[in-house]
Order: sequence, then C-alpha cells, then structure tokens
Amino acid sequence: MSELLTKKAVVVFSGGLDSATCLYYVRSLGYEVHAVSFNYGQRHKKELDFAKDICKDLGLDHKIVDMTNLNELLQGSALTTDSIDVPHGHYAADNMKLTVVPNRNAIMLSIATGYAVSKGAEAVFAGMHEGDHFIYPDCRPEFIESFDVSMGIANQGFGHPKLRIRAPFLEKTKAEIVKIGSILDVPFEKTWSCYEGGEIHCGLCGTCQERREAFENAKVKDPTKYKNLEPLEALEVPCIFD
Amino acid sequence: MSELLTKKAVVVFSGGLDSATCLYYVRSLGYEVHAVSFNYGQRHKKELDFAKDICKDLGLDHKIVDMTNLNELLQGSALTTDSIDVPHGHYAADNMKLTVVPNRNAIMLSIATGYAVSKGAEAVFAGMHEGDHFIYPDCRPEFIESFDVSMGIANQGFGHPKLRIRAPFLEKTKAEIVKIGSILDVPFEKTWSCYEGGEIHCGLCGTCQERREAFENAKVKDPTKYKNLEPLEALEVPCIFD
Repeated sequence: MSELLTKKAVVVFSGGLDSATCLYYVRSLGYEVHAVSFNYGQRHKKELDFAKDICKDLGLDHKIVDMTNLNELLQGSALTTDSIDVPHGHYAADNMKLTVVPNRNAIMLSIATGYAVSKGAEAVFAGMHEGDHFIYPDCRPEFIESFDVSMGIANQGFGHPKLRIRAPFLEKTKAEIVKIGSILDVPFEKTWSCYEGGEIHCGLCGTCQERREAFENAKVKDPTKYKNLEPLEALEVPCIFD
Repeated sequence: MSELLTKKAVVVFSGGLDSATCLYYVRSLGYEVHAVSFNYGQRHKKELDFAKDICKDLGLDHKIVDMTNLNELLQGSALTTDSIDVPHGHYAADNMKLTVVPNRNAIMLSIATGYAVSKGAEAVFAGMHEGDHFIYPDCRPEFIESFDVSMGIANQGFGHPKLRIRAPFLEKTKAEIVKIGSILDVPFEKTWSCYEGGEIHCGLCGTCQERREAFENAKVKDPTKYKNLEPLEALEVPCIFD
C-alpha cells in the first residue's frame, strides 16, 4: 500500500460527471492525484467551480489552466464563440459537431503531460467515454492509443517513469460511468454537465440529455436539478451518421 | 501554380535560424504561410521580436501565443526558471538537459495543429533538426512520426484536409540548414539563437556555439555579431552520452 501511495497521477478534471468519476477511480487505485482543469472560454465555465469544490473537499492539489488566449486561434466552436448558438437535441447528432473545439483534447493532454513530467507522475488520466466517439475524433480509442505512444516517446529518459496516457472509460457508456461513480460515492450533485452554463442544468442541451439518460439507464437516482424535464424521447434527434 | 497557392500551412516560427529557414522553405513550396510563435517565458524572448520582424517584412500572417501561464506547471528548465543558470558549453552536452521544458514541442505542435484546423491548413511545419535529437526527446524522428499519426487521427473528418505534421530538417545538420537558408536568401542577421537573450549573441552558450559551428561547416559567411569569439574547440565539452 505504501508503495502505491508514492505513485502520482495527473487527472484532467473538467468538473463534469465523467471526469469526477475518473478522479475518484484514480484515487481508489492508490495514486496521489494532481487534478488539472482548463478554462478555454467555455460558456459552461461554471464547471470549473464545481471542479474546484470537489478538489477542496478531497484536499487535492488542483490547477486551473487559463487557455482563453488560444480562442483567437481556435475558432468555430459554439462552446467558445458567442455568435454561434449551442445546439439543442441529442448529443450524438450532427449539429453537435458545432461544439468541436479544434484539437482541444490533444492540447489539454499535452499540457497535462508536461505537468505530469514536472511532478514525476507516471500517468495522465482522462474521462472520455464511448458516447464521445461519434462527435469528437480526439475522444476515440485510436487517438488515445496513438497519443499514449507519442507522449511516451516525447518524454523518455531524464529519469522519469515512462509516461502513460490513460482513459479508463473509453469503452464504457455514460450509464456505466454512473454505476461506477455510485459505487465510488462520487457526489454527482457536485458535478456539472450543462453546456448552457445557467443557474441549474437546462435539461435540454446535448450533455444534459445524455446525463439524464445515463442515470435512467444505470437505474441510479439522479440528484441533478434540471430546469426542463420533458421526456427524453420527445427531444431525441435522429443521428444522421447512420 | 494557382492550385499550389491555395494550399495553406502553419509554420512554428521561433525567430531562430532553423525555423526561419523552415518558413522560407515552406513558402518556396508555394504554401500560403501562417506563422505562429510561442512566448513560454524563455529568457531569450527577444527571438519573438525577430520573428515578428521577418513576418512583417514578408507580409505574413503571424500570431504570438502567450503560454507563460503554463510555467507554474512546467517547472525545472533553465530556460524558464530564473534560479537555474543557462549552462555554457557545447549544445549536445549533458548539462544542456537543463534546458528541457517538459513536453514543450508537443504542447506547441498541438496548439499549432488546432490553429491549422481552424485555418483549413493541411500541414504544420516545424524546424527541428538532427542536432536537437541528443537532448530533446520530442525533437526526434520517432516523436514526429508518432505525433503526425496522432494529429491526423485527432482531426479527421469535418471536411478538413488530412492534417500532417512535417519537420523537413529532421535528418539535416544545422550546417545543412544554413546552406539551404543561403540558397533561399534567408536574412540570417534577422534571426536569433542565443539562449542568454542579451544585446547581441553571447557566442558562448550552447545555441551560439552550434550556430557558429554551422556557418563554419557550411562555409557560409556568418553575419551574426557575437560578444565573445573564443575559438570553438576551446569551449567544447565532451558529450557524456557516448
């Protein structure tokens, strides 16, 4: 056990349900956790306060990286561009492509990797899951596998342990993450998913619907307060990828 | 030719000799060039002014990304930490390891890739060369090859051209780059190499020595003003990697 506790990991922690569960999971493996969050000018930057609070409750080291100055370069996403509306409807639908921030995951994982090397950590963990694959190419298993290799090569030598990129929920559904989180006692009510960034979860945007569906499918009580609770079926938009 | 001129590329441009030659080279291939420089709190941030001036002279789009806020996370390099002295002596010597900024190239290339996707550019070019391999694992061919694959995967779809990471001088010596640059009329006097960041090149630090050696070996007149011109042999430090 003492050996395990000397192992360090960096966890990319957005303050959302998936990454919160990932953080609890990595802690349960006995790692000393260093959490890192990113402010990329997302409308829902409220999630960063949720990340801060959870880390404070757990007494974890937590850094928030301001990368809003990259927005001038990384244009075209509804998440960071005020003139583009956040699309409503089901998460895996075509219009959600508008929420892609160019190369976001690679940028965040690269920074988290640099941090891990500085800390002497052996791994960077991130919480992407199966449901993300449709829309975000940098959430797919091929990307994580390839990036794991790249980051290992980029940071070999210098006495560091071999650096690994891990996404333990890559093949899990969000409902499975909810199940894992409920076993690990993740305080779901302290996590934020809504892309709208209002007072409470809107219940209508892609991530809200995905969140509601996940609790339903996992048969776990959803502690989230939603502004709108229309039945999920009525809102579903057909996936045009089929 | 008209088809060539519609092709766009992002060039990572430090303001140094290698990346300036890379920029001129990419231009000579007929690309519309978008240059991007990074302020990572390097002592020699003077190089950024050199980058700005060259882009202005060429009428190129040029962005400078401020990533100094990452320094809190990426610790331990003499290039960004005032309490650590920049080591003197030959570039490929062990003490130059102190100039490694954790995962710097991956971070810069990830950001440049996001920018390339935003611009609809088909490639990101960077100027690392053979002499960088000893010290910086993220300047090695294996890294560039692997990162090229990762970035291609991360940004596939969405109608973008397949994104490539290119380092055309990976297998070239710095002397060969000087030769290429002299053919392309690169204004070497407008490039900056010195890690010390003084008024003129110090002539003693690793990159100054490497620069002096490159012109000597290429038999190209060196237009650089150096503070110190001790013979190169006297300063050479044996490479402890052998």
